[in-house]
Amino acid sequence: MIRSDWQPDRASPEPLHRQIEHYFKQKMTSGEWGPGTRIPAQRQLADMFNVNRSTIVSALDELVAQGLLEGNAGGGTRVVSTSWDALAAKPMLNWNNYIHAGSQQPNSQIVQTINQAEFHPGIIRLGTGELSPDLLPVRRMQAVLAKLSTRAMTLGYEEAKGSMRLREALSDRMRGLGIEASPSSILIVSGALQALQLISIGLLEAGSSVIVEAPSYLNSLHLFQTAGVQLNGLPMDEQGVIVKDLARRRQSSRDSLMYTIPSFHNPTGIVMSEARRRELIALSERERLPIIEDDVYRDLWLDEPPPPPLKARDAAGNVLYVGSFSKSVSPGLRIGWITGPKTVIDRLADIKMQTDYGSSSFSQSIAAEWLTSSQYDDHMTELRAALRARRAHMHALLDRHLTGLAEWRMPTGGFYVWLRLNTGISATRLFQDALRHGILLNPGGIYDRTMGSFLRLSYAYASHAELADGIAGLASLIRSQVKA
Amino acid sequence: MIRSDWQPDRASPEPLHRQIEHYFKQKMTSGEWGPGTRIPAQRQLADMFNVNRSTIVSALDELVAQGLLEGNAGGGTRVVSTSWDALAAKPMLNWNNYIHAGSQQPNSQIVQTINQAEFHPGIIRLGTGELSPDLLPVRRMQAVLAKLSTRAMTLGYEEAKGSMRLREALSDRMRGLGIEASPSSILIVSGALQALQLISIGLLEAGSSVIVEAPSYLNSLHLFQTAGVQLNGLPMDEQGVIVKDLARRRQSSRDSLMYTIPSFHNPTGIVMSEARRRELIALSERERLPIIEDDVYRDLWLDEPPPPPLKARDAAGNVLYVGSFSKSVSPGLRIGWITGPKTVIDRLADIKMQTDYGSSSFSQSIAAEWLTSSQYDDHMTELRAALRARRAHMHALLDRHLTGLAEWRMPTGGFYVWLRLNTGISATRLFQDALRHGILLNPGGIYDRTMGSFLRLSYAYASHAELADGIAGLASLIRSQVKA
Ligand SMILES: Cc1ncc(COP(=O)(O)O)c(C=O)c1O
Ligand SMILES: Cc1ncc(COP(=O)(O)O)c(C=O)c1O
Repeated sequence: MIRSDWQPDRASPEPLHRQIEHYFKQKMTSGEWGPGTRIPAQRQLADMFNVNRSTIVSALDELVAQGLLEGNAGGGTRVVSTSWDALAAKPMLNWNNYIHAGSQQPNSQIVQTINQAEFHPGIIRLGTGELSPDLLPVRRMQAVLAKLSTRAMTLGYEEAKGSMRLREALSDRMRGLGIEASPSSILIVSGALQALQLISIGLLEAGSSVIVEAPSYLNSLHLFQTAGVQLNGLPMDEQGVIVKDLARRRQSSRDSLMYTIPSFHNPTGIVMSEARRRELIALSERERLPIIEDDVYRDLWLDEPPPPPLKARDAAGNVLYVGSFSKSVSPGLRIGWITGPKTVIDRLADIKMQTDYGSSSFSQSIAAEWLTSSQYDDHMTELRAALRARRAHMHALLDRHLTGLAEWRMPTGGFYVWLRLNTGISATRLFQDALRHGILLNPGGIYDRTMGSFLRLSYAYASHAELADGIAGLASLIRSQVKA
Repeated sequence: MIRSDWQPDRASPEPLHRQIEHYFKQKMTSGEWGPGTRIPAQRQLADMFNVNRSTIVSALDELVAQGLLEGNAGGGTRVVSTSWDALAAKPMLNWNNYIHAGSQQPNSQIVQTINQAEFHPGIIRLGTGELSPDLLPVRRMQAVLAKLSTRAMTLGYEEAKGSMRLREALSDRMRGLGIEASPSSILIVSGALQALQLISIGLLEAGSSVIVEAPSYLNSLHLFQTAGVQLNGLPMDEQGVIVKDLARRRQSSRDSLMYTIPSFHNPTGIVMSEARRRELIALSERERLPIIEDDVYRDLWLDEPPPPPLKARDAAGNVLYVGSFSKSVSPGLRIGWITGPKTVIDRLADIKMQTDYGSSSFSQSIAAEWLTSSQYDDHMTELRAALRARRAHMHALLDRHLTGLAEWRMPTGGFYVWLRLNTGISATRLFQDALRHGILLNPGGIYDRTMGSFLRLSYAYASHAELADGIAGLASLIRSQVKA
């Protein structure tokens, strides 16, 4: 239903019915009044705009004649639907392909609610997996831009695999992690999410299946599902995914590949142990299991660096390694990378060129400048200190407010505390209650259907004060549930 | 077969066989020696590296033990293939879906040859559809970066549809073209190519068909084909696509939508006339035919601005309008936009978020700064003058060298001259001959199979001197064909 504060301008030389016609048109072509929107009755419109009914009739007649409005049998008038609407109604996500032993489909409704609630003014975002605006390195970024503004630059299309300068810098960095990747086996992408998307489009076959950790990173799950792939969730313990279960599982089914986040896992914060990594690499060699290693949180270690990447031990070329600047420097850069066997990188580069012709050359120059100057390392030192302080704050708050109501283990890096609510507490109800109280939670059920009694908390996004208010508020909501 | 200039370092404390092992490994993991690469016989290797055969045997044994090399029955040794290779072998492009009345598949081999030849040092690129490096506004871009470096900036993820500042600036610009698009019905994308890709993934159904101009923009054709869509090519005359033929064609088949480049068409340079635009919009309303209007060359008019976009006359919301900064300011920015019915834009924004979380916020800030300062308009004035001079140069060269050998009409804007070779001249042979002489051509057959006697020439990329040499060279190659 349409409401409007707009009024025709009586001082204008343009007749009133033309003004109304023009106003309606603008609302419709801008899409604000979408197809199917009901137009109020002529009498109401005459009241709304303070004009004679005949003025409304002329305006509406003209719009009907132009094919913008249509009357229906019941006497109502609606905005006509466009020829695109039928196409836009086609479903995109193959939620139906979501398969997890004994589980149902994930609750996409909650994910949508979260995405919208993030924009509520004043909401406390207790689960958001991003750096808080005040942790983002604005001054350093300004210095980098100032430096670039004095340089010769290429404004044209980049090479298919991305800026050579950036690939060389990444090759050097990765060498420090034990990964030998020549620039020609590195592909620059627009964030790690795009890396996963290119792999999904280019390498996964509909009907095959992907082994994931249960729980796992939400958006990767969506992408795999969109590619028509079945997800096969494997349990984790405090050392990471349980490789023995994987070995057992693979005797029966033929999974096409595995997706893992070995360091500071999203959403659990777990770091895969050295032993587990060796076990997984050995299995992957024995069974020729391709692995996607998503390592976007690696540099966010707070106590000590995690064990070397799987890729560093991957003599057989089974691992595709994915990194990103989003968690350490700036998500707005939209810069990530993939390295792996050159044949596979060549193919992914080909697909990337066909889909967007490469990533922003400005973002690429900025990223290269970060890595080749001291900015990146200096910033990481500061960022780790700030995250340690936030983690300690969160630790104290949880101890103070949630002892006896939930269980958790503080992570050694990354953003997340994976918290298990004591039995008897409904995470779904808690999510809804909290939302009404201005607190936004990420309930475990969105990462895996069997994880309904967990919450993902993040100490990276909300401010210290918000964390204090949020955790205290959370505790009292839990208590009122327990009492009731 | 492997050749190598490398030699082990006899002064190093590392044993020779270890050095060789390490060298081999690096070549393999970097992908330089791809899976399946044959390793020379032990004797040859011993000669190559000036070591005893037993040194080679130790190195190779170790690599076989690590699963990096494998021997075969014939006694040869090869680099093992990785578990990703089978996945990477899956074909991606559905070339088979290419359908054109009476035509065969386009020659993807020539396209690949062109893509590679662009990197040959010293090659004269007579057909390249990009601004020459010296036409790219480096100084202005430096000024924009310097300005941004003093600003507060957001380094985080952007809103789903892109930076509000940029969308507002685009909304204003488009109003000047007669398009009423509110910021909420504009989606920022990573170049026009990504716009077409999102439309392909999100709105096209495999098995449906898309009407295109014959010939048309190469990469759009690839994308549509990749989406499993049939292409239905319509002939053009000097006023643009022949709408009467479209009306007739649609009586029989049900095409799902039309893709058109009405202004300074790629590859023909044609501008769709005012009358033809009206005819097309009327047909689209009558038959509810959705239209993608690709208008990336609009601002490159040289004589006078082209007629208003189809979108400006699109009262019924049938047109999705696509623009880009690539042809006017910088392809490296990777910034384009789509506007259309809000429901459709919402859906495309959703898909964009699922695929790459939005475009670089740096590129978006830069683009907004270009539009809201005087940089864009000032640059366009300069650029038009430079392109006019290039066009005049090309005109004179064609008159001087190709009169009697080919026919052409000079365009009123954009980059391209669409040249028809006189009968008896083989464009394929010309392409090959020219390549051998260091001249790169874009033969018409890559845009449409029936256009084998055409060439796309561009006055935007090669320098004045290169154009002079290139056109003279082309003429003498044609003459030698005619004589032979
Ligand atoms: C595990 C994991 N991978 C990838 C991403 C996406 O990163 P990017 O911004 O580089 O696309 C995230 C962000 O939440 C993540 O948690
Ligand atoms: C008609 C047409 N559309 C789109 C593009 C791609 O533009 P962008 O660099 O914005 O992806 C081109 C570039 O050649 C083109 O000619």
